[in-house]
Amino acid sequence: MAKIKVFENIKLNSPIMIVGLPGIGNIGRVAVGYLIKELASKKFAQLYSKNFFPFVVLHKSYEIRLLKNYFHYWKARKDGQRDIIFLTGDCQSQSPDGHYEVAEAILDFVEKLGVKEIITIGGLATGEMEKNPQVYACVTDEELVKKYKSYKINFDVGKRVGYIVGAAGLIAGLAKERGMKAMCMLGETSGFPIVTDPKAAEAILNTLTAMLGIKVDMSRLEDRVKEMEKFIKKIETLQRRAVMEIAKEEQPEAKKEELRYIG
Amino acid sequence: MAKIKVFENIKLNSPIMIVGLPGIGNIGRVAVGYLIKELASKKFAQLYSKNFFPFVVLHKSYEIRLLKNYFHYWKARKDGQRDIIFLTGDCQSQSPDGHYEVAEAILDFVEKLGVKEIITIGGLATGEMEKNPQVYACVTDEELVKKYKSYKINFDVGKRVGYIVGAAGLIAGLAKERGMKAMCMLGETSGFPIVTDPKAAEAILNTLTAMLGIKVDMSRLEDRVKEMEKFIKKIETLQRRAVMEIAKEEQPEAKKEELRYIG
Amino acid sequence: MAKIKVFENIKLNSPIMIVGLPGIGNIGRVAVGYLIKELASKKFAQLYSKNFFPFVVLHKSYEIRLLKNYFHYWKARKDGQRDIIFLTGDCQSQSPDGHYEVAEAILDFVEKLGVKEIITIGGLATGEMEKNPQVYACVTDEELVKKYKSYKINFDVGKRVGYIVGAAGLIAGLAKERGMKAMCMLGETSGFPIVTDPKAAEAILNTLTAMLGIKVDMSRLEDRVKEMEKFIKKIETLQRRAVMEIAKEEQPEAKKEELRYIG
Amino acid sequence: MAKIKVFENIKLNSPIMIVGLPGIGNIGRVAVGYLIKELASKKFAQLYSKNFFPFVVLHKSYEIRLLKNYFHYWKARKDGQRDIIFLTGDCQSQSPDGHYEVAEAILDFVEKLGVKEIITIGGLATGEMEKNPQVYACVTDEELVKKYKSYKINFDVGKRVGYIVGAAGLIAGLAKERGMKAMCMLGETSGFPIVTDPKAAEAILNTLTAMLGIKVDMSRLEDRVKEMEKFIKKIETLQRRAVMEIAKEEQPEAKKEELRYIG
Repeated sequence: MAKIKVFENIKLNSPIMIVGLPGIGNIGRVAVGYLIKELASKKFAQLYSKNFFPFVVLHKSYEIRLLKNYFHYWKARKDGQRDIIFLTGDCQSQSPDGHYEVAEAILDFVEKLGVKEIITIGGLATGEMEKNPQVYACVTDEELVKKYKSYKINFDVGKRVGYIVGAAGLIAGLAKERGMKAMCMLGETSGFPIVTDPKAAEAILNTLTAMLGIKVDMSRLEDRVKEMEKFIKKIETLQRRAVMEIAKEEQPEAKKEELRYIG
Repeated sequence: MAKIKVFENIKLNSPIMIVGLPGIGNIGRVAVGYLIKELASKKFAQLYSKNFFPFVVLHKSYEIRLLKNYFHYWKARKDGQRDIIFLTGDCQSQSPDGHYEVAEAILDFVEKLGVKEIITIGGLATGEMEKNPQVYACVTDEELVKKYKSYKINFDVGKRVGYIVGAAGLIAGLAKERGMKAMCMLGETSGFPIVTDPKAAEAILNTLTAMLGIKVDMSRLEDRVKEMEKFIKKIETLQRRAVMEIAKEEQPEAKKEELRYIG
Repeated sequence: MAKIKVFENIKLNSPIMIVGLPGIGNIGRVAVGYLIKELASKKFAQLYSKNFFPFVVLHKSYEIRLLKNYFHYWKARKDGQRDIIFLTGDCQSQSPDGHYEVAEAILDFVEKLGVKEIITIGGLATGEMEKNPQVYACVTDEELVKKYKSYKINFDVGKRVGYIVGAAGLIAGLAKERGMKAMCMLGETSGFPIVTDPKAAEAILNTLTAMLGIKVDMSRLEDRVKEMEKFIKKIETLQRRAVMEIAKEEQPEAKKEELRYIG
Repeated sequence: MAKIKVFENIKLNSPIMIVGLPGIGNIGRVAVGYLIKELASKKFAQLYSKNFFPFVVLHKSYEIRLLKNYFHYWKARKDGQRDIIFLTGDCQSQSPDGHYEVAEAILDFVEKLGVKEIITIGGLATGEMEKNPQVYACVTDEELVKKYKSYKINFDVGKRVGYIVGAAGLIAGLAKERGMKAMCMLGETSGFPIVTDPKAAEAILNTLTAMLGIKVDMSRLEDRVKEMEKFIKKIETLQRRAVMEIAKEEQPEAKKEELRYIG
């Protein structure tokens, strides 16, 4: 179950959707967050779900916010560009079936907006620090390999990994079932305990902007990553704490108590 | 979610429902199982649910059976007796919300059959072997205390326990919400790791048959308990094994494997 | 899923809802419980959910009760006062998605009663014993800061915590999605293993009654806390035990048994 | 919940369904996979479910695929043969209630195609290496024992095991509720940590092809097993890793962090 609220009824010309949610290295989250800001794209819808963690986050000093995913749009300005829908947000689902439910709700929504092609962004954890992270990709459709192979993308990802967990994988896989085409771009990253990896995000951004025929000034990336990281880290920490608290609740000290059970 | 299949459309005269499902000491299961047999009551409906464990059980040497709960009926034969619906079965729900769902499905069904009074049977684990187990009870409605206080029932159960987990408690609690009256009878039992307790079941049976104006030959109880125990133990063991296997699945040896995660 | 039963059809004049459910220090539960009693507010509806723990509780010596949340109302008696709906109860949800489901059911219900402003009450665990606990608050809407800043409330809560787990947070966050305004008040409390904190509740009560233009004799608070604590502690203990028993079920001794698995 | 996509509308003559999904020894998966290939049976439908693991798998070097179950059909070519529907796939459900939901969806689908008899295939873990694995079977209906007892099947399975977990058991058990007949065939296998067992699969295939009046060249089995094993192992490993990662997420290092909880 997911609820979507639409702020603005938009008409786009066969838009492509770019998905960047929190994940390993937060590569997708950072890359899409940076594009949204640099392109001054406009938020037009948001989504929340009972499958997200059951807490709200404090923004600034006192503002309560639900965990959400956000849809932005950007209109093509010249030939060679396409209308874009960006999907980013605070979190992914907290349960296995929730991943499917939220992904289907997202696809239901963007299908009506005319989306037929989707690019999701994730990280490929290598266990090593990468000086020059490569961009890998996998696809639902051979045609996308042809379309994008001239960009610096390594499509031999199957040698490195065998699966993609969560939204980046499922949105692509489920999109195919609707006749959409999807590609999942993966930036090489260490995968060490949850650090935002701006280098991998930059590699993705370089490839992605070339693919989309967009120019973006990369000089602000480092600053923006620092800004974003603060908030991303907060939610990550909160999720871990929330899980801990749930775990604490479930491992009570009551163990020594006399147990009078009825059943 | 629970599916109920009805074999016979019955008309009963304001029947009372007696619920005895597996639980601590299997007191309810044994007591109701014995009554069903001794009274030659007739099975008229059965229930299964996706909230039960996901396995089937082998009866005799090769017969596959779903885990189920069963409804039997017995018609009053003389003054002072009442029509009875017995509910017994192989198991309770395996998830917290499943307990509510299955209990509501049971109540939806018997409400239409005219049930306005319910007795559920469970065990009160004392941590000690009980030579002369007492019968305790709690109620949704003061009136039932008056009605049944002349039988050997200790209504001061609140001093011994504070809550009732699972079907015996929830069916009673949820029945009240529908304007039904319910009593939960509890036989004192050690509560030591899952042993069927025929003494506690006998204590319940003595009280219950008196309450219902029924005479039942208790001489076959010991034999019947042995028969039933075999099957009950099997399902218990199976549930424990099933849980183990799930646990094994969830603690893979893969830990040392190189981890290339994408997200 | 939550079922709401309404005892009395009430008409209120743009009521404010005050939410105090069990939580850290039980501050909301105690504060709202005290107001309900002192204002002689009237119970008009109750809610239960399959998302609550699957047990019933014994009240007094033998009365079976489902776990529930309760709605009370109180009508303004003079200028400067408002009609109030109080929400309190035995427990919160036991599953992450249940928190969302129950909160949405509560909001569906009170939205129809004209509620446009909500105050939820929780505890801010500081890890230290607080002699003079402060009252913190966060809001869904800037306007509420202006409205309530003249009361002794510290709105710089973001420096102390980053999130609010469970009903106190989610009811506020989800209310905003419906165009309601919500504030979450937090009393400083040690957060040491689950003790009811009457001092923090008193701090909340002093601020809250001032905000609501209500006078309440605080002299009975200590006695009332003792009364309430008994029951609250019981449910907490029960939840911990229930969790333990579920855990026991899931870690069977069967480990040494020969394992003949079919799949 | 499960979504089924149909590629071809087929008309079959009272078909039998043969189910072989991953499980202990992957006996069913291998046996059915081999029959599908050797008989050149045709894929006509596929199923996925939110109850499967939340990841996609990479085929070949770059192709994204959802986890799925697949339906194939094969038409009888001479007397003594029957039309067959084969069900195989990448995985079973990842949650207990998911097993029921997916099995019911499968049965809803094939019931409309006229299926009245089902054979599911699984493994019977013996804890020992079996040189000449026997074929055991259990049934929902006595009649199937008579029908198939002339084939080398040991129906005294109840002496070896007491239950069947997952799809092989539940599809059979739930089929009975719809008036279908079902048999579960079990190949003896060691059950040692998840190895594909071609010998047990061969034993099943010998019996099954005789029962179905089908001739299949077994000389390619070994090669096919090697092919299939690669993919089956991959998914198994992935499931284990996915579970690990979920577990990691749930045991954060945050434990030493100062905990400022609000509730």
